[in-house]
Amino acid sequence: MTKLPEAADVVDAAGRIAPVVHHTPVMTSRAIDELAGLELHFKCEHLQRTGAFKMRGAANAVFALRERDARRGVVTHSSGNFAQAVALAARLRGIDAHIVMPSNASAVKRAAVEGYGGSITACEPNAASREATAAEIQARTGATLVHPYDQLTVIAGQGTAALELLEHVSGLDAIITPIGGGGLFSGCCLAAHDRHPGLAMIGAEPAGADDAARSLASGTRLPQTDPRTIADGLLTSLGDLTWPIVRDHAATILTVDEDAIVAAMKVVWSRLKQVIEPSAAVAVAVALSGRLPSNLRRVGVVLSGGNVDLDRLPW
Amino acid sequence: MTKLPEAADVVDAAGRIAPVVHHTPVMTSRAIDELAGLELHFKCEHLQRTGAFKMRGAANAVFALRERDARRGVVTHSSGNFAQAVALAARLRGIDAHIVMPSNASAVKRAAVEGYGGSITACEPNAASREATAAEIQARTGATLVHPYDQLTVIAGQGTAALELLEHVSGLDAIITPIGGGGLFSGCCLAAHDRHPGLAMIGAEPAGADDAARSLASGTRLPQTDPRTIADGLLTSLGDLTWPIVRDHAATILTVDEDAIVAAMKVVWSRLKQVIEPSAAVAVAVALSGRLPSNLRRVGVVLSGGNVDLDRLPW
Repeated sequence: MTKLPEAADVVDAAGRIAPVVHHTPVMTSRAIDELAGLELHFKCEHLQRTGAFKMRGAANAVFALRERDARRGVVTHSSGNFAQAVALAARLRGIDAHIVMPSNASAVKRAAVEGYGGSITACEPNAASREATAAEIQARTGATLVHPYDQLTVIAGQGTAALELLEHVSGLDAIITPIGGGGLFSGCCLAAHDRHPGLAMIGAEPAGADDAARSLASGTRLPQTDPRTIADGLLTSLGDLTWPIVRDHAATILTVDEDAIVAAMKVVWSRLKQVIEPSAAVAVAVALSGRLPSNLRRVGVVLSGGNVDLDRLPW
Repeated sequence: MTKLPEAADVVDAAGRIAPVVHHTPVMTSRAIDELAGLELHFKCEHLQRTGAFKMRGAANAVFALRERDARRGVVTHSSGNFAQAVALAARLRGIDAHIVMPSNASAVKRAAVEGYGGSITACEPNAASREATAAEIQARTGATLVHPYDQLTVIAGQGTAALELLEHVSGLDAIITPIGGGGLFSGCCLAAHDRHPGLAMIGAEPAGADDAARSLASGTRLPQTDPRTIADGLLTSLGDLTWPIVRDHAATILTVDEDAIVAAMKVVWSRLKQVIEPSAAVAVAVALSGRLPSNLRRVGVVLSGGNVDLDRLPW
């Protein structure tokens, strides 16, 4: 079985990626605290390079490669923030990034990847074509596959967001992050529980893509089929590595509906003046839901990304 | 003649308001720098309390009052950010704030003022009614009038934005701020030229409300009649105090059209991930215009506010 990441891997990642990622600020808002009845500390990963926390994991994966492997480049499959992050991380290391994207990916997303120097290969919009295309590129170029979330270095890299948050804000009772494939959430579990074993880790999931909530409830990993949510970064299922971490870290998963996600997004835009994407708003919606255990008062919320098409807002 | 504010008044203001205003951050963006061909440092006054720099001048005016005057409250006329700022500043001092607003002001703006504890008095939507209504409140309550821009303490308060920016970023060649009534711009002229006499002060004005540009060109203060712009914080004319400061500080005024304002607003939302209002985007549009003197390289831009109706975006 593949080795699971540990807290020490997150600490290693923090040192490795420090030269190429932003140490993002933490923001607060009296107005939002009043709405939530909590003291919220927003970790601003939408201000991370490429506009999302994904840069942390991508940078860790790319910079952890040995030189002889790195020279042959990296390949990933993603139509979203991870694609941009791998493209930028590879450019910063001076190596090739092959990005497999479905043929129906938007021109905006393609342009973003190309802007960071990534080479796009189109595939059919399904998992089989995506994996076959990536495998073909691997075979042809010798590039190393970087998985968007189910890989030790990626999980460890994402966990550095929690490390920074805990260094910035003392005495947190809980951390809320969105949960999709689970890379961010599981990395943050490792980092946070190593420092503060009693800290509550709360995964925020759209009700329309609630595989993590159902998996935890049943004790068995259940796949996400037919996800329906505007939070397009959270459509995927937990992975072979992320699932056991979520399961074993006494995590809580709370789900929110689409109206709550949109409302939370507008609260952050209008009160915190920060442009966050729907997937990030899922964590805020959980903070505003009134459903957190009443012993939690001082709460970190990871604003996971801010890449939104301003011409297609969900309101 | 009324005494003009001086740089020392700005320094006094900074000390006076420090306990009640935010020391706002300065942000940068590689992507926007590439677009502009400049090194831009964005002073984030949209993250100021009440969402705009207006809190600086309002707080200075309110906290500069002697106790016996303060007890009788303050009155102002504004339908925008200054109204909210005076309401909050008064609440923080524990005194009454009477806000004269035109009867056609939006429910959103009324609610914002009431949210900060201001008492609204409606007037007809014209200058004569606005001033008569404020005078009636002054006569009845003994409240002190706080002018939105043409008052020494207000101008001095707004200038503290430039003081902070200069303390945060060394070696600036220029500062760009929006210019409407001129409180922010003239206050920043006083602060900046006292520290760095050679620094270029550039006022950013909508082409559809270009009284400052016309006034400077003619050497005589010209009023703004029939302004037409989405930058609704910049509709007013220069005042008795702001005009001579603008005139005497070798300022440059550059105008931008409506398309450029909207485009700049979208650049800041999508690249800096910051929600700014159209009036703030006017300064960014000037930075992106390619029309700055070529010797200017390191430029501060004051993002003046972030109060936008998310349901009525200008695109």
